[in-house]
Amino acid sequence: MGKAGLPVSPLAPAAFPDLPVIEGVQFASAAAGIKYQGRTDVTLIRIAPGSTVAGAFTRSSTRAACILDNQAKLAQGGDAPQGAAIIINSGNANAFTGARGQESVDAVTGAVAQSLDLPQGRVFSSSTGVIGEPLPHDRILAVVDDLVAGLQDAGAPDAARAIMTTDTFPKGAAAVIDGEGGPIRIAGIAKGSGMIAPDMATMLVYVFTDAAVPADLLQQALLSGLDSTFNAITVDSDTSTSDALILAATGRAKAAPITDLQEPAGRAFVEALHGVMRELAHLVVRDGEGATKFVEVAVTGAASEADAHKVAMAIANSPLVKTAIAGGDANWGRIVAAVGKSGAEADRDRLTIRFGDMVLAENGWRAPSYDEAAASAYMKNAELRIGVDLGLGQGARTVWTCDLTHGYIDINADYRS
Amino acid sequence: MGKAGLPVSPLAPAAFPDLPVIEGVQFASAAAGIKYQGRTDVTLIRIAPGSTVAGAFTRSSTRAACILDNQAKLAQGGDAPQGAAIIINSGNANAFTGARGQESVDAVTGAVAQSLDLPQGRVFSSSTGVIGEPLPHDRILAVVDDLVAGLQDAGAPDAARAIMTTDTFPKGAAAVIDGEGGPIRIAGIAKGSGMIAPDMATMLVYVFTDAAVPADLLQQALLSGLDSTFNAITVDSDTSTSDALILAATGRAKAAPITDLQEPAGRAFVEALHGVMRELAHLVVRDGEGATKFVEVAVTGAASEADAHKVAMAIANSPLVKTAIAGGDANWGRIVAAVGKSGAEADRDRLTIRFGDMVLAENGWRAPSYDEAAASAYMKNAELRIGVDLGLGQGARTVWTCDLTHGYIDINADYRS
Repeated sequence: MGKAGLPVSPLAPAAFPDLPVIEGVQFASAAAGIKYQGRTDVTLIRIAPGSTVAGAFTRSSTRAACILDNQAKLAQGGDAPQGAAIIINSGNANAFTGARGQESVDAVTGAVAQSLDLPQGRVFSSSTGVIGEPLPHDRILAVVDDLVAGLQDAGAPDAARAIMTTDTFPKGAAAVIDGEGGPIRIAGIAKGSGMIAPDMATMLVYVFTDAAVPADLLQQALLSGLDSTFNAITVDSDTSTSDALILAATGRAKAAPITDLQEPAGRAFVEALHGVMRELAHLVVRDGEGATKFVEVAVTGAASEADAHKVAMAIANSPLVKTAIAGGDANWGRIVAAVGKSGAEADRDRLTIRFGDMVLAENGWRAPSYDEAAASAYMKNAELRIGVDLGLGQGARTVWTCDLTHGYIDINADYRS
Repeated sequence: MGKAGLPVSPLAPAAFPDLPVIEGVQFASAAAGIKYQGRTDVTLIRIAPGSTVAGAFTRSSTRAACILDNQAKLAQGGDAPQGAAIIINSGNANAFTGARGQESVDAVTGAVAQSLDLPQGRVFSSSTGVIGEPLPHDRILAVVDDLVAGLQDAGAPDAARAIMTTDTFPKGAAAVIDGEGGPIRIAGIAKGSGMIAPDMATMLVYVFTDAAVPADLLQQALLSGLDSTFNAITVDSDTSTSDALILAATGRAKAAPITDLQEPAGRAFVEALHGVMRELAHLVVRDGEGATKFVEVAVTGAASEADAHKVAMAIANSPLVKTAIAGGDANWGRIVAAVGKSGAEADRDRLTIRFGDMVLAENGWRAPSYDEAAASAYMKNAELRIGVDLGLGQGARTVWTCDLTHGYIDINADYRS
């Protein structure tokens, strides 16, 4: 069972992965009773002195107070000579809470700064849950001392669980690569299940590495991976007020510092980082509210990459495509309609549609080799790949989504109350 | 029961309206067995010599063969000195059917032209139903003679039923206004239930008037009404390949011809026409697949009309807003999130959200007068009004949508097979 009493997604991995300990990062979780009693709902993460921090946040014009605060703090730069911290709560998004929203952020980050002897400008925060309710921040303040006392290197799995809302499983991903002179470790946790159509990053994601990376390069490595990871997933086309991805590098690895992202060591780091980001993004889709199918939509041959993105997202967000997938119906006509509405340049007579390796449609017409029985059999898989080639140019984009089922309606028709 | 065996929408009007006969327009319907046996699925409409015709069609880049054909024919002008005809089938959209799609259109419109002694360029056609299957046009050709023999002035209700697919009730609307020297009658029928996010017009709409209106003015009167009617509704954000609105004016009314849309007689005609269009658009939403609530989203105070449209559609298309409405949950936080993701200029601290006359949120914060019990009670209504004022400018837009329920999943998880 997930934290909210929902059955675990059939697309969940068998187990939470073994995350490597990132030296210089410690976690603690506590139950503050923000929305429910008896569940861990606050997480504190301490990041060692000398680390660098990068972040990406939602572009929603109604973004939450903590997002605005994080953005203001990171605008001062990503160096953390005295260290940094992140305090996260679930159960309440502290979004659309007026001036009181910022007061809550100040109270919570101020308390953490004092307890950990950090500048308040290096204490970041995230809140996820209901929008528009005041954050009962006194409940968080009441557990700060316990959190500080409980900080431990191996606390990431508990933290991944504490940040869940309608998630049905905790999400983590990691990579270990050979740096110059020693290994570099990257580990991240994420939450997200509904209100997933990220516009910069998704719900809450925290990634840590022991690599030594200057703040500007860290930010650059993060941003260059967004479009192919978190900005390439959608559960329900709804963008959250609270999307946040924070990345910290502690520099505690024995490996030589990363000083150039174009050099082999830098490229290997970026590739591993993006791999971890992609895996976390996929886990969010696998826990999409009500999801029973994990769907890759790969668009090629578009006039531009922007067009490929439009087409891929039009398909991945189409309620008619997603309900057909839920029903195991190889209804590729709905993919044609989604291509048509996308706003991207498209030519009916150059369009090719594949399910897995099967060509269903080509040259503006059902493929001669089309086999309804085989297509229907393919749709029974839990993991599907829809390929669309527009036959126009070199633009390509792959995105990931899930199906739209009765489970989504069950979860969302009465989530708040 | 609707034609497809679905229970009639709870939002359906009590009865099909009494449509006035439009002199010069005749209807006939027949069962051609295009997809199912024993259901009327083909409609023929004959329009008298001397009429004018106007049209609006989907902008989908994968639009159906009949749409391309209608657009080419109307590009030659809207005058029909020898008369015109429209032949419509349900059960098959003749979309994404390659060159064979146009061959089917030519065969069907050619047969009608021959039977009614009309130029083929004045025979328009519509097809609605499954995308990507070849249209079995021989079945339509087999009933053309029967259709011609059965043409009658009072056939609109049967026609409204024959064009249904997943619709649960036939849709008609009418207006009678005082022209100069006699009454002017306007009557229309529509179909539409799913794949409704029109981009010029919705599924299939046919409107007739006995007014005398030059073709260019008729087209202008039609286009000026689209944004506030069919382009202001959405059921599921999916734009059809087959949206079409055809309007014909027979000039058989005793009223003086309309010669200027700015003069009182012209203005009265346009207003009545737009009223019929709006009513038909509302009926499409009331028959939205699985709908149990009819929802008006009225946005005011936007920086521009385009921004107001973005915000209204972001709310009206949000799965999270629509599932909350289905569940009777006054979850206005999801409206805040939809405003935020819309891409329109918005300032959290100027935003006001109303349900009916109740102010729920203002000045970036829950309203002091907010009453959860009253808001929840309001949500039990079958007709809801969400008001959003952005507090920035004069841009305003009202759109209409329905809720997202288990019924939508039921209908669409296995519609094709």
